[in-house]
Amino acid sequence: MKPLNIAILGCGTVGGGVAKILTEQKDLLSKRSGREINLKVIAELNPEAAIKRFGLDAKYFAGGGAPVSREDAGNNIKKILEDNDIDVVVETMGGKGNFVHDTCLGVLQHGKNLVTANKALLAERGADIFAEAAKNKLQLGFEAAVCGAIPIIKGIKECFTGDIIQSVSGIMNGTSNYILTQMQQKGLDFGEALKLAQENGYAEADPSLDINGGDASHKLILLIKLAYGMTVTMVELATIGIQDINKNDMDFAKEINASIKLICLAKLKDNKVYATVRPMAVKNDNTLSQVNFAVNAVRLDNKYSDTHFLIGKGAGSTETAMSIVSDIVFIARHGEVATYNEEDKYTLGDANQISFPYLVSFKTKNLPGTTGLITTCIGKRGINIETVGHNRFSGETADFSIETETCTLEAISLAIDDIKKEKPELLLEEPKILPILY
Amino acid sequence: MKPLNIAILGCGTVGGGVAKILTEQKDLLSKRSGREINLKVIAELNPEAAIKRFGLDAKYFAGGGAPVSREDAGNNIKKILEDNDIDVVVETMGGKGNFVHDTCLGVLQHGKNLVTANKALLAERGADIFAEAAKNKLQLGFEAAVCGAIPIIKGIKECFTGDIIQSVSGIMNGTSNYILTQMQQKGLDFGEALKLAQENGYAEADPSLDINGGDASHKLILLIKLAYGMTVTMVELATIGIQDINKNDMDFAKEINASIKLICLAKLKDNKVYATVRPMAVKNDNTLSQVNFAVNAVRLDNKYSDTHFLIGKGAGSTETAMSIVSDIVFIARHGEVATYNEEDKYTLGDANQISFPYLVSFKTKNLPGTTGLITTCIGKRGINIETVGHNRFSGETADFSIETETCTLEAISLAIDDIKKEKPELLLEEPKILPILY
Repeated sequence: MKPLNIAILGCGTVGGGVAKILTEQKDLLSKRSGREINLKVIAELNPEAAIKRFGLDAKYFAGGGAPVSREDAGNNIKKILEDNDIDVVVETMGGKGNFVHDTCLGVLQHGKNLVTANKALLAERGADIFAEAAKNKLQLGFEAAVCGAIPIIKGIKECFTGDIIQSVSGIMNGTSNYILTQMQQKGLDFGEALKLAQENGYAEADPSLDINGGDASHKLILLIKLAYGMTVTMVELATIGIQDINKNDMDFAKEINASIKLICLAKLKDNKVYATVRPMAVKNDNTLSQVNFAVNAVRLDNKYSDTHFLIGKGAGSTETAMSIVSDIVFIARHGEVATYNEEDKYTLGDANQISFPYLVSFKTKNLPGTTGLITTCIGKRGINIETVGHNRFSGETADFSIETETCTLEAISLAIDDIKKEKPELLLEEPKILPILY
Repeated sequence: MKPLNIAILGCGTVGGGVAKILTEQKDLLSKRSGREINLKVIAELNPEAAIKRFGLDAKYFAGGGAPVSREDAGNNIKKILEDNDIDVVVETMGGKGNFVHDTCLGVLQHGKNLVTANKALLAERGADIFAEAAKNKLQLGFEAAVCGAIPIIKGIKECFTGDIIQSVSGIMNGTSNYILTQMQQKGLDFGEALKLAQENGYAEADPSLDINGGDASHKLILLIKLAYGMTVTMVELATIGIQDINKNDMDFAKEINASIKLICLAKLKDNKVYATVRPMAVKNDNTLSQVNFAVNAVRLDNKYSDTHFLIGKGAGSTETAMSIVSDIVFIARHGEVATYNEEDKYTLGDANQISFPYLVSFKTKNLPGTTGLITTCIGKRGINIETVGHNRFSGETADFSIETETCTLEAISLAIDDIKKEKPELLLEEPKILPILY
């Protein structure tokens, strides 16, 4: 059989890692694949840095290792797409602009398999890319796009295929988990923990997409597509980031034996999928609460095989690169594969209707009758109260939290509206509502 | 494409679960596979019980649902093997006798794919079965044979294929983990916990294979075969069960913030694979220490993608059945697949040379100078001591443990020999040696 020839577009942190593994382990990968795996060409604007950082041979680079103009780089990519000898293109340029989008689509239009770690592109602009792969019976590998090295994409497409996933949840953003872990373990406030994450390379200079839940949403959108055959947009997905979590929230969670984590959740009920990305108070008995720092974890609750956890590194150069290489080996081993299709029978439910116990924290004036008023309003909305936490009052203000029994977010919101109507001046801040995950 | 036709041999706990999922979810499985998945026939001695227990239609059973003599059952299986219309045979009869072995081999010799949960057969007598599948380019699915529903077989063969597994370890026997968890949480002794496991359906009337480490060894042998391309026999694998673990051991482990677990471990070092199955003291920071009751967990430490955990149900009717169904879907999706081959370059190392810190517990006469003598003997063998635990003396005997720094099992054994030579009457029992897992 002819070798499986690979082209890599973009040789930065991830692409360089792929090139390194493909060259270092060529014999082993070929043996596992039952077919020679051959890195043929790398398109990169600045080969010298990549050659030095990853110890690569200059011969792999289009242009022989010399710096390449943007125009030449475009031409090199065009040549790769038109080269009939190339079987797989690895896209590790990143971004979700037209150039990257059109290049990925072009790879498939030219009859080549595509492997990418580009979650933003696939989650926000992936519809025609997925469709093109299906139409041409080509593989579109994106294991690296969701939780780095954790094999959750193949987990759903190839491993839990005898099951029905009742819910998929997890910790899918390493940066925010690192920040929350530092806040919890060292008592830092959000700003201090973010700074520490930036100093240690766990957060970028502009950390917006990590801390506002955007990156985690991209991943959940891709998992929902696989597990439930549905396309959900960023606008449709109820997303709250971690930027408003403070020391008090950490303390209130600790009081009920829980840790705050940014949780992605999609849950099937009566043919509707309820999905959200938001900080939750995860009880310490739940394995997810013990997943700390930049580690990722995915939990599946399945109809036949019960609960499963997959825990591992969600980012990093060789970690993400390994996932891409595993997609290449999968293409080599399996070639043309039927598109994985889920029955197209689910619709998106209203996230306000998801039932949870909730941890609701209040900052109020420190007045007699406050607890009575708030708990009465909650009770009138049919919500049972599990506990009222300690009041951390300081002079004129009171801080305390209430743990409810299971109810909807809608019911909680209505109760809070009632409190505001009853005594408009009582609440000094909008109460914070954290679902509690057992 | 013609439907993928399935035959099931044996319709007990697991086979019945497979039949149930295949019939309940036929449309979904067919959609996912890109091909109709069709249960054609079940061979079973006692169909009535299976029909009742799993709600199956009598039409699926060879003989139409009536009880079948052993001779007729043999003929039914022969017919299935010779039926050119059948593509996959699911073996869920169990046992490792000649009949089962020859039937499995026969399935492959007749050009059909084989799926089985039979770890004992594959681990002890599987060589010619694996070879026959490779020769005929047929799939041999055995996801269900190792840790039930945890996708560790496809994890190694299809997901972490871009990596090199530096070590594979885990909790692979639910019965022994259930017993150890009960001992730890309720302070039971081994006999009481075993009885509880039997009463609750977690241990069989004859629990030997679960508590002596045999079942866990079968699983580790299959993982070593996949991860390192090596065939290890039950005799070669250093195995110790949990039957000698007592309350004192639990207490000594707790003293060093650890829990005792039956651990399977295979570790790659300098092209040698060091493997053992034995109780270890797992530090509470290690995720494996929090895997309790009948749950299984596999840990991979990989060259490129670092540490991964897969945690889930290791047994149960629908759990194990789901794994088998996922193998069937895999066959439907991928048909002929190159055999997964690892480079054949590793040999088995001497388990006595594995380096660990150790927890060594002593029962001695309660005499002055005992600690000095023992710690001196240990020191003379070049082993550093981390801590000496509390002495739980009762009258004339003393019970205490010593935590060493990293050393080999061989060095510990030599130190114990030295102690015996120095003062033959001092040790009242053979010291217990538990590797400590961080």
